[in-house]
Amino acid sequence: MTAVGIDAIEIRTGKLKLDLANTFAPKKGEDPEKYTKGIGLKHSSFPDVYEDIVTMGANAAKDLMDRTGLVPDDIGRIDVATESAFDNSKPVSTYIAGCLEQVYDGDFHHANKGERKFACLAGTQSIDDAYNWIRAGRNRGRSALVIATDTALYERGDPGEATQGAGAVAMLISEDPNVVELSTDQGYGSADETDFLKPNQQFPSVDGKRSVQVYLARMREALEDYESVAGDTHPDDFEYIPFHTPFPGMVRKAALLGYRHMTRGTDVEDALESEIGRQPREADFDSWDAYEDAIRDYMDDLKETDQYSEWYGHAIEPTIDISSQVGNWYTGSVHIARLSALRSAARKGESLAGKRMLVGSYGSGAQAEIHAETVREGWKDEVSAIDVEDQLDSRYDISYDEYELVHDVHNHDKEVDVEEFTQPDGEFVFTGWGRMNERRYEYIE
Amino acid sequence: MTAVGIDAIEIRTGKLKLDLANTFAPKKGEDPEKYTKGIGLKHSSFPDVYEDIVTMGANAAKDLMDRTGLVPDDIGRIDVATESAFDNSKPVSTYIAGCLEQVYDGDFHHANKGERKFACLAGTQSIDDAYNWIRAGRNRGRSALVIATDTALYERGDPGEATQGAGAVAMLISEDPNVVELSTDQGYGSADETDFLKPNQQFPSVDGKRSVQVYLARMREALEDYESVAGDTHPDDFEYIPFHTPFPGMVRKAALLGYRHMTRGTDVEDALESEIGRQPREADFDSWDAYEDAIRDYMDDLKETDQYSEWYGHAIEPTIDISSQVGNWYTGSVHIARLSALRSAARKGESLAGKRMLVGSYGSGAQAEIHAETVREGWKDEVSAIDVEDQLDSRYDISYDEYELVHDVHNHDKEVDVEEFTQPDGEFVFTGWGRMNERRYEYIE
Repeated sequence: MTAVGIDAIEIRTGKLKLDLANTFAPKKGEDPEKYTKGIGLKHSSFPDVYEDIVTMGANAAKDLMDRTGLVPDDIGRIDVATESAFDNSKPVSTYIAGCLEQVYDGDFHHANKGERKFACLAGTQSIDDAYNWIRAGRNRGRSALVIATDTALYERGDPGEATQGAGAVAMLISEDPNVVELSTDQGYGSADETDFLKPNQQFPSVDGKRSVQVYLARMREALEDYESVAGDTHPDDFEYIPFHTPFPGMVRKAALLGYRHMTRGTDVEDALESEIGRQPREADFDSWDAYEDAIRDYMDDLKETDQYSEWYGHAIEPTIDISSQVGNWYTGSVHIARLSALRSAARKGESLAGKRMLVGSYGSGAQAEIHAETVREGWKDEVSAIDVEDQLDSRYDISYDEYELVHDVHNHDKEVDVEEFTQPDGEFVFTGWGRMNERRYEYIE
Repeated sequence: MTAVGIDAIEIRTGKLKLDLANTFAPKKGEDPEKYTKGIGLKHSSFPDVYEDIVTMGANAAKDLMDRTGLVPDDIGRIDVATESAFDNSKPVSTYIAGCLEQVYDGDFHHANKGERKFACLAGTQSIDDAYNWIRAGRNRGRSALVIATDTALYERGDPGEATQGAGAVAMLISEDPNVVELSTDQGYGSADETDFLKPNQQFPSVDGKRSVQVYLARMREALEDYESVAGDTHPDDFEYIPFHTPFPGMVRKAALLGYRHMTRGTDVEDALESEIGRQPREADFDSWDAYEDAIRDYMDDLKETDQYSEWYGHAIEPTIDISSQVGNWYTGSVHIARLSALRSAARKGESLAGKRMLVGSYGSGAQAEIHAETVREGWKDEVSAIDVEDQLDSRYDISYDEYELVHDVHNHDKEVDVEEFTQPDGEFVFTGWGRMNERRYEYIE
């Protein structure tokens, strides 16, 4: 069976950044370490006044097509995943295709365009759609362009305000891919939850504590479901485990839970027995609550072991690098986690080809998905070619007052006129509204 | 290769109906035939005050599961297609799964739930996702539940007001299906258009004239793309051609264009030559406009031929029966067109097994998709078991004043308190909002 997976990746960050320690924390009267250490974020990305989910997605897609030499006829579908859509009927993918058709010969008239919504999960679901389409033999030799694009804004003063972010990840899904092959096996954990939602509103209503619990519960369920088809997992099976990263602190919790689950009944549990005892077993407890308390105690001890720290340091820490510099990109988040790990490995000169990752995606509302990926021979050239540092380093550092203006510019309920902070240069920009109230775009040389 | 396609279907109409000829036309001071003959609609369906896209979808899904004896473990994914979502993050499929979990033992925790948006096209895209998922070998023997659910409302006074409608179509996508097998071949016609959109608004902005042109242009493009992989089409190849039906008048235009295209260079063109001449060829004209004018003239003549009338009467007319009684169901529309045709064939005692249909789906914004379906042995038992007439006949016939109240109840920007017009009976109902502003549902025995 021909491998199917991710062939190329590009990102596009919003061109502004908010410094959480030096700009946000002082204004909020908070200890900077609440952000840098507690939730694990240094900066948030924001779109400049001429950027939005369409420009970020189209710019990432154009970078990808230019770098890999693709023309429109090579693309059989354009799938956009977002929870920041500004239209209840017309999909963002049509706007992005319209942008790209301004600069390429040819068109995307025979490409299937789509839009998926499931909080932060839809990027992974769109990759799955593309994978399945190729496996179903419907792609006619063409690839799929999957674009996860979001502007993650919260009400000002909301506890989520420090986790904002904006950016797009474009991924090419192809046969015989350069970066990773996707597993056929998948695991799902899914329930009707009200942890985070946006009922007819742009900014989310969030139950923060519940949201953390639901993330962990659904992720555990997804891992159990994955193991039911793929067999038991073990930490040694996977070089990296990229998780959906609303903020790095969440990943610390998920990683600990995952490690505890994967090591149960293994050599790792045996090796740790003398130090922290064996994992609690439900049968030894009178109540579920008592069992859960014991599990929590075990995990508190586990977290302090050298064994766990060493594993966390090599399998998880490298996944949160980009996230800590850009905040939450919602649908793109897990995909920058994967990219962070691969770029870290490239920098360290690791030999990854043939090795595996376990990828844990999540969307509030709520659903987790877990699948495995096998790294391909071409991974290093591909991930080394992506200009992540340039983009992150060249962002304009906004003051708190500027942050408030930027937040208002992207608030659908406000109309404010704010000067752009950066100059567009070889990119698609938002130029205003047309007669049907549609958003309009142009390519600026 | 095992057949994959539609195994079972259920519909749920909104429980209210507006009589266009006898209630709407007099109030608007219009000739009733403007609606019944011109656009081709007798009634519009509306949801009662306790109905919405979730209840209609969940009720259709429950009917389907009960009739076919399915339990939650048989379902591997729940895909909802809608352009009437009331949340920008949490998908409607989670609400519907939550409803179903109230009444069934077991749960859908390992089912992938999704939501797709592309105007009226997303129902067909969701069927494709399910087909591809099965073909990719990821379904573990399970089926997919695809639910197309919409409440199609326009601003009062908008030209689209007469084409409103509300309802859901639930379809089970399985291996070895009872109703139809889907073709692997597909054709797409797609462009970035602003014919119909809902920029941060519930009710659409519509350019009616443009919308008709775009529908026809994209459909022609999709047919050409389909033929590029499946070979030339001929009217004799297909028993029925269900189209997306925003209103039956639109289908009259699409059918004529399709017939003209399919018969070009065939025995049909030859047979009609003495009566209306041969089809214009672009090479014989100095300009595209002159060619298009000549095509239009040819189609005016074609429409009046016995040959065309006979074909329209057997291949198209049977597809618009349900639509003419319920209005536009957006994502569900093309799926009630297919169902109309099959029910007509069952009533007439036709032998359809092994015969083919060509299905033309469309969504504004804009994209058309064309694929073929082969009718399966079990089709007649399945479509005969669906209680379409009962549902349509038992709708409560609202007065114009009641229509205005119902329209306000379902307007997201209004808060009105209106008594229900019908009594819920063995169905899911909307019961109000929870603390996170989430919509809540209960099953009423």
